[in-house]
Amino acid sequence: MIDAGILPVFGACAPDPMLETLRETVLAANRALDASGLVRLTWGNVSGIDRGRGLVAIKPSGVSYAALRAEDIVIVALADGAVVEGRLRPSSDTPTHLALYRAWPAVGGICHSHSRHATMFAQAGRPLPCFGTTHADHFHGEVPLCRALSAPEVASDYEGNTALAIIEHFREEKLDPVAMPAVLQAHHAPFTWGSTPAAAVANSIALEMCAEMAIGALILHPMLTPLPAYLLDKHHQRKHGPGAYYGQGE
Amino acid sequence: MIDAGILPVFGACAPDPMLETLRETVLAANRALDASGLVRLTWGNVSGIDRGRGLVAIKPSGVSYAALRAEDIVIVALADGAVVEGRLRPSSDTPTHLALYRAWPAVGGICHSHSRHATMFAQAGRPLPCFGTTHADHFHGEVPLCRALSAPEVASDYEGNTALAIIEHFREEKLDPVAMPAVLQAHHAPFTWGSTPAAAVANSIALEMCAEMAIGALILHPMLTPLPAYLLDKHHQRKHGPGAYYGQGE
Amino acid sequence: MIDAGILPVFGACAPDPMLETLRETVLAANRALDASGLVRLTWGNVSGIDRGRGLVAIKPSGVSYAALRAEDIVIVALADGAVVEGRLRPSSDTPTHLALYRAWPAVGGICHSHSRHATMFAQAGRPLPCFGTTHADHFHGEVPLCRALSAPEVASDYEGNTALAIIEHFREEKLDPVAMPAVLQAHHAPFTWGSTPAAAVANSIALEMCAEMAIGALILHPMLTPLPAYLLDKHHQRKHGPGAYYGQGE
Amino acid sequence: MIDAGILPVFGACAPDPMLETLRETVLAANRALDASGLVRLTWGNVSGIDRGRGLVAIKPSGVSYAALRAEDIVIVALADGAVVEGRLRPSSDTPTHLALYRAWPAVGGICHSHSRHATMFAQAGRPLPCFGTTHADHFHGEVPLCRALSAPEVASDYEGNTALAIIEHFREEKLDPVAMPAVLQAHHAPFTWGSTPAAAVANSIALEMCAEMAIGALILHPMLTPLPAYLLDKHHQRKHGPGAYYGQGE
Repeated sequence: MIDAGILPVFGACAPDPMLETLRETVLAANRALDASGLVRLTWGNVSGIDRGRGLVAIKPSGVSYAALRAEDIVIVALADGAVVEGRLRPSSDTPTHLALYRAWPAVGGICHSHSRHATMFAQAGRPLPCFGTTHADHFHGEVPLCRALSAPEVASDYEGNTALAIIEHFREEKLDPVAMPAVLQAHHAPFTWGSTPAAAVANSIALEMCAEMAIGALILHPMLTPLPAYLLDKHHQRKHGPGAYYGQGE
Repeated sequence: MIDAGILPVFGACAPDPMLETLRETVLAANRALDASGLVRLTWGNVSGIDRGRGLVAIKPSGVSYAALRAEDIVIVALADGAVVEGRLRPSSDTPTHLALYRAWPAVGGICHSHSRHATMFAQAGRPLPCFGTTHADHFHGEVPLCRALSAPEVASDYEGNTALAIIEHFREEKLDPVAMPAVLQAHHAPFTWGSTPAAAVANSIALEMCAEMAIGALILHPMLTPLPAYLLDKHHQRKHGPGAYYGQGE
Repeated sequence: MIDAGILPVFGACAPDPMLETLRETVLAANRALDASGLVRLTWGNVSGIDRGRGLVAIKPSGVSYAALRAEDIVIVALADGAVVEGRLRPSSDTPTHLALYRAWPAVGGICHSHSRHATMFAQAGRPLPCFGTTHADHFHGEVPLCRALSAPEVASDYEGNTALAIIEHFREEKLDPVAMPAVLQAHHAPFTWGSTPAAAVANSIALEMCAEMAIGALILHPMLTPLPAYLLDKHHQRKHGPGAYYGQGE
Repeated sequence: MIDAGILPVFGACAPDPMLETLRETVLAANRALDASGLVRLTWGNVSGIDRGRGLVAIKPSGVSYAALRAEDIVIVALADGAVVEGRLRPSSDTPTHLALYRAWPAVGGICHSHSRHATMFAQAGRPLPCFGTTHADHFHGEVPLCRALSAPEVASDYEGNTALAIIEHFREEKLDPVAMPAVLQAHHAPFTWGSTPAAAVANSIALEMCAEMAIGALILHPMLTPLPAYLLDKHHQRKHGPGAYYGQGE
């Protein structure tokens, strides 16, 4: 999968400080995902993008988090997924990451996990309603459920078609990926994203907590309805957008 | 937000040992909250008050617990929330803390978190019944559910109005904030308090455990009723009040 | 509460190696209980007995596990609960422990906690059926639910009457405390016991796991019935009794 | 139980490097099982096999994981369970392990635990449906429920008959133990296996997660049906079989 035509540009002999920084950022985000308790075994991966150079850094496939080093992070081309640097095979979900980056220019990092409670919703085929301000702080409304792929879609380009179904869903439902940085794929699990790899991981953590609290709330009140729109808007704007006053304004 | 008229009184050059102690106490309580597992990301904050000087110390907004140092704790004026010491922005929930301190003179510390099981009750819009002695040891009866704010209340002074709704609820229901050091706010999450910041955190931990055990008890017995009043009184008085014989009598 | 008539016998000046061993054993068991994750705050206590001398060692009331040292463990007289050694007040549950020791000579250690899933059953007022071999390995049949105390029983000698109700229940139901080293007290929580303090803690851990698995099994199969008697007997005898072949035969 | 006729061959004086490697591998897998959080107390065991020499290494019975050392791992003969090396009694489940190794030549390691959510399904007497891709990645279809043993089977050779019932179930249902490396035994708990002891442990971890997510999915959607066959096949083949492209191709 190594594209010889690109290799000379980012030659293996000359270390590239910008790529090293990207690899370190993506390594740290993968370690944060592991430390969060959201992943078991190797069920998760985080990527980050250098938009200026059209390069994506992503976890190698099937490598345990404990053993992961910066040099194991694989650099692939945004355009076609060709491996630009790295001796390992990139995550099998790489085509999904790349297609989302190509469709949504505001995304700087993507996180995929099979975190337990978010995956329960994905497996049950239910979107995640916004039942409280914790949810509203991170996701502007119901976290959507993306349809399962058809048999032909699975047979031809499974991971690429996964992203196409997500992108299609967001376009049809007029969802803004900045205000809604998460999706649940039916039968599968969540994907989240953000302005950076760390933000993508934080959104996965938030999604998992919201899913767990939603299941408990539904046990206590099976007919529960979402919180009022004015509360949803207030909490989301408190943290995001021009008038945000949560945090230190970084 | 810095009130220049107050700054000279607590000048930045002369370290103030009483404020340092308050900051250390509040820092320790925030760290205890983090260590308890009740918070994820930055979803929680603890404050403490120096009643003599009318000053409140509180966690800065959106700062991770791991990075939190004593000098990051923000000192604000009880009267108007003006920042008296500290380079960071105080928690966005500061107006809620201040209004509760102003209404209830016996309160020495306040803790807010989105702990999972307590938040499930808040999101489901159900108060937390007293199903056992664990609950009775800490909370004298059902932990109340405070109504959600109206759209105008959210639009004008959201965090301040949150406290006003809680205070109004306690007054109308004739609840004593010393015997009932917790509330669940609908659609949102719990607030707890106590004689010190550490006691407020302990009450958040107790509330979370009671909420988790109540959900399980309701799964096992959906029509479960609260424990008898004589058991509630006995357990609460064993730990609190003049005849208390639990603990070392500190 | 110090009984001056007993103090000279176990004089404070002459260290007593047998009491030191008992204190260390009880300290270790309390730490094991804390490490097990079954307790929050100070909601639990373990005791051990020296039958030859009629002395019981127990955790002091309301002291955090992290701060607990051997010299904090309180020595009380089996006969009347008088404090024989120790500067701290013993656990408020001490009268319950003592009455169980007096009633059941085979018991060498007692553990009380408010562990979450066992407490859910106690609060729901349901005994814990034996749904599997994990349960059968430790408890020979359904873990009984002991009735709540009446108002007069609570008013007169709450902690002592707690034990009397348990003992009465075991006698009426012809339960052997060796084969059934656990009870759930209605509205309250579990007590477990064993031949040593460590065995009592292990039974609390086993009870908690069995309770958690029973709730899940009931969610999956609400009409679930207990496992057959021949399997219950087989698993219990594999670990206990004359033909036991589990473990190293210690 | 020591078979004197075999002892001279693997003499106690001459250390056997191949057996040492097997013991270290089995020790590491038992420690990984403990670190996974799947076991409490001593409720689990992992074994590994040296097919060339007909020897199986297994955890000793009832020994805590924290205290476990390589020399504690017991070596038994595949053919008859005779202890070949080791001073401790092997796991009481040894006959189950041995019978599975004899029936299924592709199995290199076996893991038994009472992990909570998998055991809930076993206790409830329900097989574990494949509700998502996490499951499909590890188990090709529904994880089967093996019937409980009859009273005569329990009375004669309980642990051996456990394996016979599992083997019979796989033969009757035409299940391939390589594609389906797990079983739930009714009233009891799961067994998993794999090409190595570490793979067997990984399958136990995967099974536990899939069981937990299935319970949550069933709470959200009680009539949930398994994922489509084409998705099951795709995910299983992505990780296993000739065209696998997950991982680093080791």
